[in-house]
Amino acid sequence: MEFLREDSRSLDQLREARIITGFTMHAEGSVLIEMGNTKVICTASISEKLPPFLRNKGRGWVTAEYSMLPRATEDRNIREAAKGKLSGRTMEIQRLIGRSLRACIDLEKLGERSITVDCDVIQADGGTRTASITGGFIALAIAVNKLIAEGKLPENPILSNVAAISVGIVGDKPMIDLKYTEDAAAQVDMNVIMNADGEYVEVQGTGEEATYSRAELNAMLDLAEQGIKELVEMQNKAIEEGSN
Amino acid sequence: MEFLREDSRSLDQLREARIITGFTMHAEGSVLIEMGNTKVICTASISEKLPPFLRNKGRGWVTAEYSMLPRATEDRNIREAAKGKLSGRTMEIQRLIGRSLRACIDLEKLGERSITVDCDVIQADGGTRTASITGGFIALAIAVNKLIAEGKLPENPILSNVAAISVGIVGDKPMIDLKYTEDAAAQVDMNVIMNADGEYVEVQGTGEEATYSRAELNAMLDLAEQGIKELVEMQNKAIEEGSN
Amino acid sequence: MEFLREDSRSLDQLREARIITGFTMHAEGSVLIEMGNTKVICTASISEKLPPFLRNKGRGWVTAEYSMLPRATEDRNIREAAKGKLSGRTMEIQRLIGRSLRACIDLEKLGERSITVDCDVIQADGGTRTASITGGFIALAIAVNKLIAEGKLPENPILSNVAAISVGIVGDKPMIDLKYTEDAAAQVDMNVIMNADGEYVEVQGTGEEATYSRAELNAMLDLAEQGIKELVEMQNKAIEEGSN
Amino acid sequence: MEFLREDSRSLDQLREARIITGFTMHAEGSVLIEMGNTKVICTASISEKLPPFLRNKGRGWVTAEYSMLPRATEDRNIREAAKGKLSGRTMEIQRLIGRSLRACIDLEKLGERSITVDCDVIQADGGTRTASITGGFIALAIAVNKLIAEGKLPENPILSNVAAISVGIVGDKPMIDLKYTEDAAAQVDMNVIMNADGEYVEVQGTGEEATYSRAELNAMLDLAEQGIKELVEMQNKAIEEGSN
Amino acid sequence: MEFLREDSRSLDQLREARIITGFTMHAEGSVLIEMGNTKVICTASISEKLPPFLRNKGRGWVTAEYSMLPRATEDRNIREAAKGKLSGRTMEIQRLIGRSLRACIDLEKLGERSITVDCDVIQADGGTRTASITGGFIALAIAVNKLIAEGKLPENPILSNVAAISVGIVGDKPMIDLKYTEDAAAQVDMNVIMNADGEYVEVQGTGEEATYSRAELNAMLDLAEQGIKELVEMQNKAIEEGSN
Amino acid sequence: MEFLREDSRSLDQLREARIITGFTMHAEGSVLIEMGNTKVICTASISEKLPPFLRNKGRGWVTAEYSMLPRATEDRNIREAAKGKLSGRTMEIQRLIGRSLRACIDLEKLGERSITVDCDVIQADGGTRTASITGGFIALAIAVNKLIAEGKLPENPILSNVAAISVGIVGDKPMIDLKYTEDAAAQVDMNVIMNADGEYVEVQGTGEEATYSRAELNAMLDLAEQGIKELVEMQNKAIEEGSN
Repeated sequence: MEFLREDSRSLDQLREARIITGFTMHAEGSVLIEMGNTKVICTASISEKLPPFLRNKGRGWVTAEYSMLPRATEDRNIREAAKGKLSGRTMEIQRLIGRSLRACIDLEKLGERSITVDCDVIQADGGTRTASITGGFIALAIAVNKLIAEGKLPENPILSNVAAISVGIVGDKPMIDLKYTEDAAAQVDMNVIMNADGEYVEVQGTGEEATYSRAELNAMLDLAEQGIKELVEMQNKAIEEGSN
Repeated sequence: MEFLREDSRSLDQLREARIITGFTMHAEGSVLIEMGNTKVICTASISEKLPPFLRNKGRGWVTAEYSMLPRATEDRNIREAAKGKLSGRTMEIQRLIGRSLRACIDLEKLGERSITVDCDVIQADGGTRTASITGGFIALAIAVNKLIAEGKLPENPILSNVAAISVGIVGDKPMIDLKYTEDAAAQVDMNVIMNADGEYVEVQGTGEEATYSRAELNAMLDLAEQGIKELVEMQNKAIEEGSN
Repeated sequence: MEFLREDSRSLDQLREARIITGFTMHAEGSVLIEMGNTKVICTASISEKLPPFLRNKGRGWVTAEYSMLPRATEDRNIREAAKGKLSGRTMEIQRLIGRSLRACIDLEKLGERSITVDCDVIQADGGTRTASITGGFIALAIAVNKLIAEGKLPENPILSNVAAISVGIVGDKPMIDLKYTEDAAAQVDMNVIMNADGEYVEVQGTGEEATYSRAELNAMLDLAEQGIKELVEMQNKAIEEGSN
Repeated sequence: MEFLREDSRSLDQLREARIITGFTMHAEGSVLIEMGNTKVICTASISEKLPPFLRNKGRGWVTAEYSMLPRATEDRNIREAAKGKLSGRTMEIQRLIGRSLRACIDLEKLGERSITVDCDVIQADGGTRTASITGGFIALAIAVNKLIAEGKLPENPILSNVAAISVGIVGDKPMIDLKYTEDAAAQVDMNVIMNADGEYVEVQGTGEEATYSRAELNAMLDLAEQGIKELVEMQNKAIEEGSN
Repeated sequence: MEFLREDSRSLDQLREARIITGFTMHAEGSVLIEMGNTKVICTASISEKLPPFLRNKGRGWVTAEYSMLPRATEDRNIREAAKGKLSGRTMEIQRLIGRSLRACIDLEKLGERSITVDCDVIQADGGTRTASITGGFIALAIAVNKLIAEGKLPENPILSNVAAISVGIVGDKPMIDLKYTEDAAAQVDMNVIMNADGEYVEVQGTGEEATYSRAELNAMLDLAEQGIKELVEMQNKAIEEGSN
Repeated sequence: MEFLREDSRSLDQLREARIITGFTMHAEGSVLIEMGNTKVICTASISEKLPPFLRNKGRGWVTAEYSMLPRATEDRNIREAAKGKLSGRTMEIQRLIGRSLRACIDLEKLGERSITVDCDVIQADGGTRTASITGGFIALAIAVNKLIAEGKLPENPILSNVAAISVGIVGDKPMIDLKYTEDAAAQVDMNVIMNADGEYVEVQGTGEEATYSRAELNAMLDLAEQGIKELVEMQNKAIEEGSN
């Protein structure tokens, strides 16, 4: 692949990633994840209380919330708190993050407690939902390690890492980790969430007023698989670093 | 495939489908679509007015709304109007229906008007979102044909049919068109939206506290492709019938 | 009365009525009621749980909800769920339906359970609230018969049928069962809700930027009384049919 | 009628009424109306601007709003502003007041302006909605007289007084102007709104988990007619007094 | 100070104040307080129930709510109940009233009950929040005296009176008790809440697109101290009168 | 003052402050301000459009919004966007920030544009509102300098710096810049907002279920004055640094 992108990346190249653990002091797990110019604060908050409808079932719960600072984007967005309701986009994203994180953890082994993963985008340049999943898993794993260190969990409930990346077709070319300008120009936009064993947790591929063939689908899945592997390695380093 | 399901279907067999056109009298396009016990009223309403942010751009708009009657399901659900807000699930579904329908129509050829497709589930037994897309397309096409018959459209803006079906993995077996009990037991739940040319409009595959392999993904896509072909034929008959 | 109306009815003639029992499969009682072009799905849902403020009082509760599909009408209406609140009109109607149904049932004999009657208008041509009461009673009675058949009720709590019809003054003539165009032109619009013994449950007569005399009030009440008798007979047939 | 009520009134006797005009200083029309212990501040506010959907139709608009102070009643009620929405009861009442007031005014002669009548109950003892209509008309008429005095109206748009009173059946006896304890015990509760010519503007009669005969309906209407005549006289004195 | 204000007051002169106790009949404490043309109904409602998060702590709670009738002001305001939310201004004011009242009462001695003080402005001419505090304290004290008289409180929980007044700088002159036109022209607007011992409960001084010096701050505080003394005397007379 | 606080500060000593300019890339002005462990992202967003009610008045507008990430605090807070409304606390704070910033700028010289200053607390340890004002001013000034550099402003509209600090009385001792544990234990909590000339923009002093004397008020104002001077110097350095 010789074609170079706007920021000189090759088609299968991730943006430069950076993970700062312990980014804020109160949360049981906390990271700042940067994928290029996309920056998300992910915190994991443990509560020993479950919401009423989940109590007394011998299992815990993991949920996620997602938000953007109003000026995370090129133009300022009105706060959802000011509008008085969450947008459909926000709900869709936070449901996706929650589902993805729950796929990587044995809720029975977690015990009757809940962990809320908050993903707050402080700067956006495409791929905020996939960065939230990748970073959210790190915060979650650090919080779980804290529970283990405190002797509150007899067994590690984490089943496997979960990480996510966007792939897409831009100018008829499949490519990975789209930045905002690429995303805006994409014919197809796909988010792939996988575990450390190369199995799918979720695949969402959307033609943007366009359609795509099975061959294109396969090309995108190939790209994603490779990228996820790199992310899983980064996660493991960060979790080790953040759990001490 | 010799294995028989709860309702004696084979793994690749759709439920019995029925489409009644002209189901209600006011809408420009109106059908009742039944996929087994799932029943959805789909209406297409034409408005010669666009929402303010879409005006004067030389193109129209297609949007969708989705709702369930409170007792469409086994247990009665509280109305979203009474709760004062749409659930995340509803928003996700109506955004999906809208995106899917827009992928099949040339918005510039539609002209500066909007079409709203309402999908109201009066009885639910799994697959309500895919039935809504399949039925919603029929209502939309009938409404467009009405515009053409009235001389309001110089050219047909419909690019291709769009239809949708659910596939999944239940008891480790890939199968098509899951009814509610199958859906509740599924390890993987996938919705496939395709056009008449066999291209993807959208693919959404979710592991339900589980993951799936690429081989399983491919098996599900194979099933979906066949089912969509059958649905497209049914759509064409209904559209012809409903456009006179 | 020789004067003929738009649809060739005489002044004291009801529109053609049709009642389909068992219209949807999940509800304990379910009918589609049609009064001419007005079509309403009425379902009765039994819950063995009472809302907190009604518990431990040795009596049950019957309540009603009312809604219109967005394109039940000539022009599409915005969904109340999307607006985030019920309109005053909806609240007024569902309070009226609930009060009317409670007047026909002994809540102590019902026992500590609640029945919710949902009235969803799928096509509107005037008289939707009265059709909802007439059809809602049928759904309620079928659900109660189901409780009796299951041995859950020692005694039938139904006191009497309740049925409703609109009357009005259009072009200075009193007439019954107004269709939409008549309703829109009416000087006076009155809804009469009666039981099977010819007693009033509720009378609401409104001058539409007009007033009316006592003689006119009496003429409208005479018309309503006759119409209600016909509706009660239809109800009884449908309840018998729907309770097997 | 020799039977005496809790407060020693005869069955056809209104409670002592008091009307203070000019009760607050900013509104174009303002009264405090007291019917026994029920006290309502009614103000009429003129705006030279119509809401968008009513503009350029050559006619004005009259609307009403109704509220209770939280401790107007025996037990404190939560404010609707705090709950974030109007109750069904409030909506029903303010729609009734608005309809009733519009029945007494020629909106074309009012010109392209709107008048909002606010009815705020500061102390409640039954009959707050009828007191609001009776008092609201006075405020409205005073405001209209102000417009006439300022030369802004070539012709008086008021067609006739409108006044309202409650009647009901308590302990099988028809009686007028129910105070709270009577209202709570009533089998039938009816609100009658009439103009100065003895014609009906609106009649609403509700059996409270009970029904009523035509003879009872007539007895209540007879009582109401007499009471309304007395109220119309009081209104006229107050309007004269308040218009100078 | 010879300079005379619009209404001929000297700079340190309060407006004429009037307090009517027992203004409404249901509340445990109820006053109408008038400071010039500003008129506020203050009621204190006792509840033997605490909100869940305050229960079982061996102490009670005092809270306040504030509202204006829509036509309390020169121009009609839209009701907050109709808008579906409280404005920032209302929230700020009712939090201030609540904090101020709580500073004057020993919540442990009050016992596990709550008192809600409702301040409803029926006519506004500046200084509504300070009148609400001054009048609200009277209603609160009367309600507390009722509890004492009923033998429900072994000891008086009131620590000291709390009263409030506005001061400000208008046309470079510090003055007390600003009426609306003065308030609108003020460079600095300050609300001072003090107890009967001349100690501060709260001081809020705001430059209105302006700033102020320490000398000006001191001049305003001097004025306030004198005014509060007068108000405390009036409160004591009213409490005595209202507690019999 | 020899007494040392929990973190070894003297009573008149500010916490260590750090200001990072250019913290996010999209906003016209952006800083991270840290006062000890309190960390706030402040961004200033310029819009060339004014809200409708402010248009065509020959002047601009400055407004502020304030929020906390859910896990900025010891315990996780529910998001206001999820609750569907802003708390009274949030509204009070953002109104205070907005008023304070407007006091330092000539809105006419700003021209018909608006600047929104967003203050998002990512970590909280007391004094978040004062840090928001101090940091918000820096973001605002950098954004204004950008307008000047682009030739969009003929004259600098900034009148003076505005900075804020908390002071209070803890354990009977007046002290400056309270961290959370001090704030929670404070008898009096005061926020002082001043300009670079030592004049007050706003003073808010609240007894927390306590009162305070004039001498104590004066001691707190003395402490604040000194602290504000230090903050103004820091602001000037940061603005210079951030404006290149």
